[in-house]
Amino acid sequence: MRIALGIEYDGTAYNGWQKQNFGLGIQEIIERALIRVADHKVETFCAGRTDAGVHATGQVIHFDTSSERQNRGWLLGINSCLPDDISVKWARQVDDKFHARFSAISRNYSYMILNRLERSAIHRNRAWWVHKPLNEKDMNDASQYLLGEHDFSAFRATGCGANSSRREIMKISVERDGDWIKFNVSANAFLQHMVRNIVGTLISVGDGDKSIDWLKDILESKDRKRAGVAAPPHGLTLVSVDYPSSAGIPIFIDDD
Amino acid sequence: MRIALGIEYDGTAYNGWQKQNFGLGIQEIIERALIRVADHKVETFCAGRTDAGVHATGQVIHFDTSSERQNRGWLLGINSCLPDDISVKWARQVDDKFHARFSAISRNYSYMILNRLERSAIHRNRAWWVHKPLNEKDMNDASQYLLGEHDFSAFRATGCGANSSRREIMKISVERDGDWIKFNVSANAFLQHMVRNIVGTLISVGDGDKSIDWLKDILESKDRKRAGVAAPPHGLTLVSVDYPSSAGIPIFIDDD
Repeated sequence: MRIALGIEYDGTAYNGWQKQNFGLGIQEIIERALIRVADHKVETFCAGRTDAGVHATGQVIHFDTSSERQNRGWLLGINSCLPDDISVKWARQVDDKFHARFSAISRNYSYMILNRLERSAIHRNRAWWVHKPLNEKDMNDASQYLLGEHDFSAFRATGCGANSSRREIMKISVERDGDWIKFNVSANAFLQHMVRNIVGTLISVGDGDKSIDWLKDILESKDRKRAGVAAPPHGLTLVSVDYPSSAGIPIFIDDD
Repeated sequence: MRIALGIEYDGTAYNGWQKQNFGLGIQEIIERALIRVADHKVETFCAGRTDAGVHATGQVIHFDTSSERQNRGWLLGINSCLPDDISVKWARQVDDKFHARFSAISRNYSYMILNRLERSAIHRNRAWWVHKPLNEKDMNDASQYLLGEHDFSAFRATGCGANSSRREIMKISVERDGDWIKFNVSANAFLQHMVRNIVGTLISVGDGDKSIDWLKDILESKDRKRAGVAAPPHGLTLVSVDYPSSAGIPIFIDDD
């Protein structure tokens, strides 16, 4: 049978989701825990392969197992075998046709920026500290050029292995709450480093270095060298993944 | 001249505020940074001597210096000499009569409880995970017995060195927001482990093990052995310290 899990992690200590030749991937830690609970070797598939240092509050994965457990048994069993910076939020038996990656309709990411003179000790691993004042309205206006289906080559990492560079952004916004600037983006899928490259580019608009329309030029140029530097990974969080309601995946409630 | 600082820290890695014979105290780290910025040896005094693992978003300290610096110079200079889990939020030259500890009118602490079946990776160091369902209304009702001036011997650590065990609680409340239970308490001062002992005792009311009135009995008994176990330190945060407005200390805005 097939089991889906909702996963939360603080990515600070890990070398991203995937199994790595160097460093420790989150996938490897979870598969080790699953072997102990399932009593057999387990392969996992995830909705979003997050980079090193990136967090998740709503990662979704699935695996196949021959072991019979209640949803609650999977949840508590796996959590007891995981380090304290990775946790399972829910476990659900799903249809054998469900696939964490291929059934997903969209991935929703947030990027937190702390925009003030003083850095924050408490939020050091969850937000990018930018001390130069940023105009979030200009950033939001510029971000709207990215809405819809486009060739996102300008925001794609050099090493990105995707066949196509076309993606569809369904929602994108930049909002301020006091010293905090919150960037939200939903797309059918993302190219490697795409969110971080977009955020890094929007910063150049926010600090007045570039105009709002510059973002349109960058997008149309399809030239990675013209866009801004990638924003650091620690401000980024995979917040949730949307599936067709028929998949029976819990709807994520953002309580963070 | 005398300088006051607003300090934020993630207490996870430290052995509490005070200089220690074993382990590393936050005070020691800050004084080492101050030596570099002030160019002379500096002694600091704090408003609340937090325990090992306890956090602060609004600790206040002061020190005397012969060095002339702008407030902004102190702020940026000290922050550049501190590790990333300790930060200065503001710096202000104050009257020589100001004392971070003795001028304080009240200390305000919060204690966060995550009350659900699943633990949280992201919040592992900032909230106490209690999976047994808690009745926050009963906890709030019980906490009201502690309002006002009392002998808090029942909630005092064995090793507490304070001369008197009388303290005045001005505000105390327990509120729920989804899976989160937030405990807030303001008092003129606290005995050692007093907040954590109160929270640990309220849990026994919240999970139905004890009645609301039991808290009154415990308080009146003045017997530490009758109260509950201390709640773990990592849920506790020193949120702010109140001073007479004449002291010129910034009013803390809770943005966390």
